[in-house]
Amino acid sequence: MNNKVTIADIARELNLTGATVSRALNNRKGTSEETRKLVQAAAEKMNYRRDRIAWSLRSGRTNIIGVIIPSAEINFFGSVVHGIESMANQHGYNVLIYQSNEQPEYEKKAIETFLSTRVDGILASIAKETKEFSHYLEIKEHGVPLVFFDRANDSLNIPSVVVDDFKGAYYATEHLLKQGYTRIAHIAGQQHLKIFKDRLDGYKAALAANGVTFDESMVYFGDVSINAGRQAIAHLLTVPHPPDAVFAVEDFTALGAVKELKDRNVDIPGSFGVIGFANESFDEHITPSLSSIDQQTVEMGKEACRLLMELIEGNGVVSTQVRTKVVLEPVARFRQSSQK
Amino acid sequence: MNNKVTIADIARELNLTGATVSRALNNRKGTSEETRKLVQAAAEKMNYRRDRIAWSLRSGRTNIIGVIIPSAEINFFGSVVHGIESMANQHGYNVLIYQSNEQPEYEKKAIETFLSTRVDGILASIAKETKEFSHYLEIKEHGVPLVFFDRANDSLNIPSVVVDDFKGAYYATEHLLKQGYTRIAHIAGQQHLKIFKDRLDGYKAALAANGVTFDESMVYFGDVSINAGRQAIAHLLTVPHPPDAVFAVEDFTALGAVKELKDRNVDIPGSFGVIGFANESFDEHITPSLSSIDQQTVEMGKEACRLLMELIEGNGVVSTQVRTKVVLEPVARFRQSSQK
Repeated sequence: MNNKVTIADIARELNLTGATVSRALNNRKGTSEETRKLVQAAAEKMNYRRDRIAWSLRSGRTNIIGVIIPSAEINFFGSVVHGIESMANQHGYNVLIYQSNEQPEYEKKAIETFLSTRVDGILASIAKETKEFSHYLEIKEHGVPLVFFDRANDSLNIPSVVVDDFKGAYYATEHLLKQGYTRIAHIAGQQHLKIFKDRLDGYKAALAANGVTFDESMVYFGDVSINAGRQAIAHLLTVPHPPDAVFAVEDFTALGAVKELKDRNVDIPGSFGVIGFANESFDEHITPSLSSIDQQTVEMGKEACRLLMELIEGNGVVSTQVRTKVVLEPVARFRQSSQK
Repeated sequence: MNNKVTIADIARELNLTGATVSRALNNRKGTSEETRKLVQAAAEKMNYRRDRIAWSLRSGRTNIIGVIIPSAEINFFGSVVHGIESMANQHGYNVLIYQSNEQPEYEKKAIETFLSTRVDGILASIAKETKEFSHYLEIKEHGVPLVFFDRANDSLNIPSVVVDDFKGAYYATEHLLKQGYTRIAHIAGQQHLKIFKDRLDGYKAALAANGVTFDESMVYFGDVSINAGRQAIAHLLTVPHPPDAVFAVEDFTALGAVKELKDRNVDIPGSFGVIGFANESFDEHITPSLSSIDQQTVEMGKEACRLLMELIEGNGVVSTQVRTKVVLEPVARFRQSSQK
């Protein structure tokens, strides 16, 4: 408990005013980059430790951002968090993460914990099982800025950063057609989640644009899992006119499809093409390597964090300068599984 | 900001004392399981929201546990966190995560953030780049309980939960010998980290126990990465008397070895056996599937959390009842890559 060094000590040492030192330490406007570096170096040298509780009571800020992710076991979210952290650290914010395990009860706990620790803002990606959103609206009621990333809900009027899921699905489906596959199936996800609905719509649009009639028997609705991918293939191969390629709603589902096809000795990509979505890190390690759609995870994290910081600086008021929705361009990553 | 319902309201509703309601809400001893459930159900029904800041000033507790993990992109840590959360939630604690990105500067930020948010305890796995540990000792100085998991440092006299790395390495090496491989190489990790040193020692011990003379040219020191695995194989295949099997210090390194061997058309497991360590989730998805050592991640998380809660309840004093080191038994997961 040796919090001896004060802002006044640093100010004396550097011959600056206390206000300047305080601004520099808190990355506030009104100090030059040079002064900021000077003060922070001195603070470090003098072993200054801000009493954050006291400071937070004075300033109303903690310089902490809370991030709610559905699961730490999905690389996608780990990668977005990296983007968030790089942007946050650059601006002197710390990032705390809470896993919702895809369950609304845990989202509620996360929000309660973040509000009670007085975070300056919250970034969130909605859990798959969440169908009612009042807990998110509570964040707004507390005046704490909130930005959604990836899994958003447009009806809540909360800023968000998402990838263009429709377009990504369109690219994936069109790619399979261009590779010479003629009957493209889609393994879809839960339709109450906008991202999954958009992907189904993108799939349909690509078929239509290429003169292929949409056939309902070519869509299998799963729960976004390896097992769903396996079940989808087992089912799709039994329909009267089976597919010769599949666009899976995300990569774990695509992985299940690949496994089931391999178990049945169906040659990928020769007799059957597969493409997923999310560009999970395992994609390049499996055999055949899995084609996918890159959602620009790091960029997504950075943008979401940037948007949140604009809201924090603007005291939660969405100014005309603040973009309320950022849509990132998906990038196709074609690998072995879809290239004849 | 509608924190209208108070403990007194709940007490009146249930005809209990305020002290009983408070104990029940905070999962303290001295109330029956039945009362606890009754009170918590009433609190939920009445929309009671604890003013955590006020409560924390009174009780000195926040019911929040901070967890420092090196990376959210390694499934191993995601899985340990699941174990931590299941135990923590069961006892009414919330879990916040901070990623150190394997860097000591971020560990310091994590600790500063957790101390400033007044967490009740901290669980940590040491970053690979950390060679100086004073920031961890600072946690102790603040009287906040700390428990290490997986990556610990015995010299700091801090309780820890680890897997028996020596034994795991011993099992892996002996398994390769039993499969008929005769010249076993080891791709080692950074030796300032105890877990990696223990694995090298376990490898040596298994060779000795099976009458195989240790040969220094069979050990390659890498940085624990896919690339290190590739480089190790490229090197090991050029030594005068090359190996016919390799035990890699962890699974990403093993994955690099598998990739390099496949690129060179070396048949796995026919001509060359590979086994890793950590049982990463990709192990079963690659071809051939990767043998590995399971560190019982969920169990590790649960044990670490249980140990931490014993420390919190004991006000940070390690009683004779509190175990200061828990060593978990590794479990072999033999798959295609090592079974001739």
